[in-house]
Amino acid sequence: MELIDIIGFIAGICTATSLLPQLITTLKQKKAQEVSLFMFIVLLMGNALWIWFGVAKSELPIILTNSFSLLLNIIMLVLKYKYKDNE
Amino acid sequence: MELIDIIGFIAGICTATSLLPQLITTLKQKKAQEVSLFMFIVLLMGNALWIWFGVAKSELPIILTNSFSLLLNIIMLVLKYKYKDNE
Repeated sequence: MELIDIIGFIAGICTATSLLPQLITTLKQKKAQEVSLFMFIVLLMGNALWIWFGVAKSELPIILTNSFSLLLNIIMLVLKYKYKDNE
Repeated sequence: MELIDIIGFIAGICTATSLLPQLITTLKQKKAQEVSLFMFIVLLMGNALWIWFGVAKSELPIILTNSFSLLLNIIMLVLKYKYKDNE
């Protein structure tokens, strides 16, 4: 593995973990009204397209980062639905 | 420009614009306490590393997306400092 791929992985960890605080807050407060459903769908689409881009370019850092973000965003979407009555 | 690069640009627009709602909310409410300073610095570091990755791999979609995100995050950091007394 080249240095630049390690750079890509670290970048991915930084940007993907930025979703965690919001996920944790949502779990604690059992509320998810700050973020709009539309924004989540846009984010999910972006993650999916980045995965397509990463696969086409064989760039593992992009694939793994966006797969992890996609997973976190799907969990947020489920929580947003689960807690919709608490909003 | 190949199809896959267009896919990358669309992915970038989707994921970068996801920062906008929070920026707009911060400007409206003149408050930025929801997001921690630490998380912003992690995000900025991630954007900067992705730009480095994009330049090394000559991937324009990655460079432009993360430059735009870096700009939005710097604005958020300035707002967070500017409105720190409102928290």
